[in-house]
Amino acid sequence: MVNGHRLSFTILGTGAVGGFYGSRLLVGGAIVRFIARSDVAWIRTHGLRIESPLGDRHHRPVDVYAATDPIPTSDVVCIALKTTENDRLPELLRPLIHEGTVILNLQNGLTLEEELAATFPQAVVIAGLCFLCAHKIGPGHIRHLDYGRITLAPADARAQACIPALQAAFAAGGIETDVQESLLAARWRKLAWNIPFNGLSVLLDCHTAGIMFDPEARALADRLMQEVAAAASACGVPFEPGFIPRLLEATARMVPYDPSMRLDFLAGRPLEIEYLYRRPLREAARRGVRMPAVETLADLLSIRDRARRTSISAAVA
Amino acid sequence: MVNGHRLSFTILGTGAVGGFYGSRLLVGGAIVRFIARSDVAWIRTHGLRIESPLGDRHHRPVDVYAATDPIPTSDVVCIALKTTENDRLPELLRPLIHEGTVILNLQNGLTLEEELAATFPQAVVIAGLCFLCAHKIGPGHIRHLDYGRITLAPADARAQACIPALQAAFAAGGIETDVQESLLAARWRKLAWNIPFNGLSVLLDCHTAGIMFDPEARALADRLMQEVAAAASACGVPFEPGFIPRLLEATARMVPYDPSMRLDFLAGRPLEIEYLYRRPLREAARRGVRMPAVETLADLLSIRDRARRTSISAAVA
Repeated sequence: MVNGHRLSFTILGTGAVGGFYGSRLLVGGAIVRFIARSDVAWIRTHGLRIESPLGDRHHRPVDVYAATDPIPTSDVVCIALKTTENDRLPELLRPLIHEGTVILNLQNGLTLEEELAATFPQAVVIAGLCFLCAHKIGPGHIRHLDYGRITLAPADARAQACIPALQAAFAAGGIETDVQESLLAARWRKLAWNIPFNGLSVLLDCHTAGIMFDPEARALADRLMQEVAAAASACGVPFEPGFIPRLLEATARMVPYDPSMRLDFLAGRPLEIEYLYRRPLREAARRGVRMPAVETLADLLSIRDRARRTSISAAVA
Repeated sequence: MVNGHRLSFTILGTGAVGGFYGSRLLVGGAIVRFIARSDVAWIRTHGLRIESPLGDRHHRPVDVYAATDPIPTSDVVCIALKTTENDRLPELLRPLIHEGTVILNLQNGLTLEEELAATFPQAVVIAGLCFLCAHKIGPGHIRHLDYGRITLAPADARAQACIPALQAAFAAGGIETDVQESLLAARWRKLAWNIPFNGLSVLLDCHTAGIMFDPEARALADRLMQEVAAAASACGVPFEPGFIPRLLEATARMVPYDPSMRLDFLAGRPLEIEYLYRRPLREAARRGVRMPAVETLADLLSIRDRARRTSISAAVA
């Protein structure tokens, strides 16, 4: 990838994340190709609509492909699928990845980039940690509510060199980015928010404000964060003093926000438990650190997720 | 209290526990007086109906009082209120307790008998740990589904002496009892079941079979039990080897069973979190033992219990 030329992107997924950022990159002048599944025919006919405080957009025509179509080579491949579909990833990515292709992974979770780098050693892997409140409200139709910043974290020095071009492409589309030198630190910092607020929003059936303005729920979120902090330390990326209180304060100041897991739950989609909870638990356990409250949360989420889809309660009633 | 004579009982509460055991004691020939709140007028007019595999019963007339009525002295006062009403207990009990009155406490939880003994040093305190599946289906109307055994645990030697007469009164009504020498051990053994199954039945919205036949839910119940076992040990009443596996096995063999907390939750009643969770957590913490998974469960229950009654989610939406 060469800094300075007009970048081309292939975006895997036309959900809230893929649709929104793809639209912003188009607005900024990048070449953007989408790979969709159920929406391909719809988007080909009707285009892609984004409602957003940044301005509503209706992109039409849109360069959209099914995974089985021949797809032109792009500089950057953005992964914007849910991690619950990650068993499909190697097959989906294989035809798209060439020597030096940038994989920009917009998913949530831990150990994602290690897996990508191991499977595609010819690729340049960069994590893109999205702070976004948006959801898909219909085929090819995304509603962006708030936020949008991306934290970019390169997996290695080669990836580091590609950061400025990516930042420029996003900036042209009105998307703020910042850079974290340590991918592992960036992932754990994100988990410090995602682990409490995603799980609690499902189990307590409320948004961030519902958690923050209930003293007991806030205290539980804090306790979960302390467990994540201990695990991050054990993994060699301790949080700086004051990080967790500041994160809680910032959350209290946010407009009420539905974490992605709550949106998934309400929409009947499977929950991203493996990469958001099980992998961090495993990485911590490998260093001798347990996160018992986090584990309890993960178990409850996992059981409810499965029960909802298999109706265990009904089956034995 | 003299062994051998016809015992008299005053039963505080005409819910599932008070109504069912009161009925069985009546069947066995004891004198039984009930103290009711909302049901007084109804029971005076219509009596008390129990549907049960032991035989349906319709007691009429029933000796029923409001708390403010003058009430004859009884040998035994049974506490069959929810612990969520325990702030009313001293006032309710004061006119009923004389020198040597037996307080038979049928509530669930920890530290209950210590409180009673401290408030009423003239009384004889015995814990009655009920293994009962029954619920109130209307005013003065109880449905007994299964079980009914009571474990009696005396608070001291004086209480020990009253056990045979109590056992005889219950046996005459078809209620099996057994005796545990150590009240503290009996309470912790009961908590080993109550802590996981009450909480999980609410948070996972299912009965015991729903928990036992889901491998992940069963593993979580097991993990919660292990925390309770560690706390019981720290409190000086360790479980014997094999106790927890046997408890799990017995639960798997039970007919699907709705723990009382689930019935409370479904009926919109406040949950018994203080005596079932907070007191055990506090007693363990005093001995330097944490139960982090139990604490997480307690927090989630407490937040949901409060949210349901104050609609925090709605208030901030």
